[in-house]
Amino acid sequence: MDVVSNRHEIYAKLDHERISGRKIGLIPTMGALHAGHISLVKKSREVCDVSVATIFVNPSQFGPKEDFSRYPRTLESDLEKLEKAGTDFVFVPDSHSIYPPGFSTYVEPPAVALKWDGEFRPGHFRGVTTVVLKLFQLIPATVTFFGRKDFQQCAVIRRMVEDLNVPIRIEICPTVREADGLAMSSRNRYLSQPERQQSLGLWHALQGANDLISSGKRNVDEIQKAMKQILSDHSIERIDYAAIVDEETLEPLTTIEKTAVILLAAHVGSTRLIDNLLIEV
Amino acid sequence: MDVVSNRHEIYAKLDHERISGRKIGLIPTMGALHAGHISLVKKSREVCDVSVATIFVNPSQFGPKEDFSRYPRTLESDLEKLEKAGTDFVFVPDSHSIYPPGFSTYVEPPAVALKWDGEFRPGHFRGVTTVVLKLFQLIPATVTFFGRKDFQQCAVIRRMVEDLNVPIRIEICPTVREADGLAMSSRNRYLSQPERQQSLGLWHALQGANDLISSGKRNVDEIQKAMKQILSDHSIERIDYAAIVDEETLEPLTTIEKTAVILLAAHVGSTRLIDNLLIEV
Repeated sequence: MDVVSNRHEIYAKLDHERISGRKIGLIPTMGALHAGHISLVKKSREVCDVSVATIFVNPSQFGPKEDFSRYPRTLESDLEKLEKAGTDFVFVPDSHSIYPPGFSTYVEPPAVALKWDGEFRPGHFRGVTTVVLKLFQLIPATVTFFGRKDFQQCAVIRRMVEDLNVPIRIEICPTVREADGLAMSSRNRYLSQPERQQSLGLWHALQGANDLISSGKRNVDEIQKAMKQILSDHSIERIDYAAIVDEETLEPLTTIEKTAVILLAAHVGSTRLIDNLLIEV
Repeated sequence: MDVVSNRHEIYAKLDHERISGRKIGLIPTMGALHAGHISLVKKSREVCDVSVATIFVNPSQFGPKEDFSRYPRTLESDLEKLEKAGTDFVFVPDSHSIYPPGFSTYVEPPAVALKWDGEFRPGHFRGVTTVVLKLFQLIPATVTFFGRKDFQQCAVIRRMVEDLNVPIRIEICPTVREADGLAMSSRNRYLSQPERQQSLGLWHALQGANDLISSGKRNVDEIQKAMKQILSDHSIERIDYAAIVDEETLEPLTTIEKTAVILLAAHVGSTRLIDNLLIEV
């Protein structure tokens, strides 16, 4: 496994791979890797000849009051996991080379970034689209892999790639969960033992909604109330949103008539968690 | 010469060229081609193996009161000129394929876009950075050629490419002028015969400033006054700016101490013209 921090070096190496006809898979990460990230590497190894992970905690996607400074940095164990998973290249740039002095060009994200996390985390998606577009320029990949756990992020990146004609294919992979259902997230390690129990409320709320829909309920208000009750039963009171939306536009629905997605964001202690579930009716 | 309107087709063809090891030169244009554009094609043919021009009148870089609808469209003669100049590929997309329904991702231009044309043409540079980034994705070129006539545009694109890590080299080529000094521009064809005479005021103002600086004048106020007088002598009264600025940041100077650039934008009748001159001291 080749670990590279210089952006010219990684470009040259991968451009060479590309020109040699190899299919390159890119897995952008912020490190603090868990089984969800590793599932993306595995998928990349299935469909590509060369797999590249990037590790960069991107400052521009954190709000001023968010957890940038305490975001977990676990480089050594990240590299071990990537090596074990068969990753070929890891790009670990320093912040200065990504945001040099005078940096001032940003990617203004598409309309699908306006609601939900766009409202609760102002500037977040602008940071995401900017850094992801930069990574797509630095790594001439054929395919890039993202986890469905960040559902809105996937929609934003998909639309950005389409709008800006970036020559890369996007593959969205299933959310990986702990045995009890909690969606894997680097932020789960912020949770204390009692908070870890509480956090199951998100998964139970999604399951509860799913059960109601399976039993024929179609009224979104009613389902939302049930979800909030389940969250409350787990002492989760600070809910950013518990929404049922169109899977493409992420516009809220009032009645479920076709495939929809439930988007959830809530605070457990001082940790903000998100999860989602695709509902096919 | 291969004229292509489908974006997938142009990408596939040029990706093939690139993978075959050929150096690709890109000349983005809005058509209405003149000797300035053709000089870019010639430069590309000198340094690249394959030269691609694009013709697209980009709606997003025109303000609502600007000349988008009456901007000259001269496709047939453009193609003749490009063929004669030895262009290999011409990409002529339709507007729909560049801005499909729901398009909503833009490139927010760097700080160097804020002043001058950024003030007088709100939204202009956002349209430029967005369409140019898109062309850089659609055409996997090695080098791209721009004319120094659009000095601020060159600075904006250079910074965008640096900030977003676009793997392309930018070459800025000298302004091509008519025999009497008027900078070539597609908009010159808007000028009536008397306006064509008036328009020489821009070149004379730049020359006048240059003479003052050569003779030792360093005070910007004084030089600006002289420029405005020369413009006024040509009955040019609506001056957007006549500025002397740092060649990198485009920040206005008060005294000329090192290489600077004179930026000029003024209206001749209903036509807005720009010009500039690099001053080495």
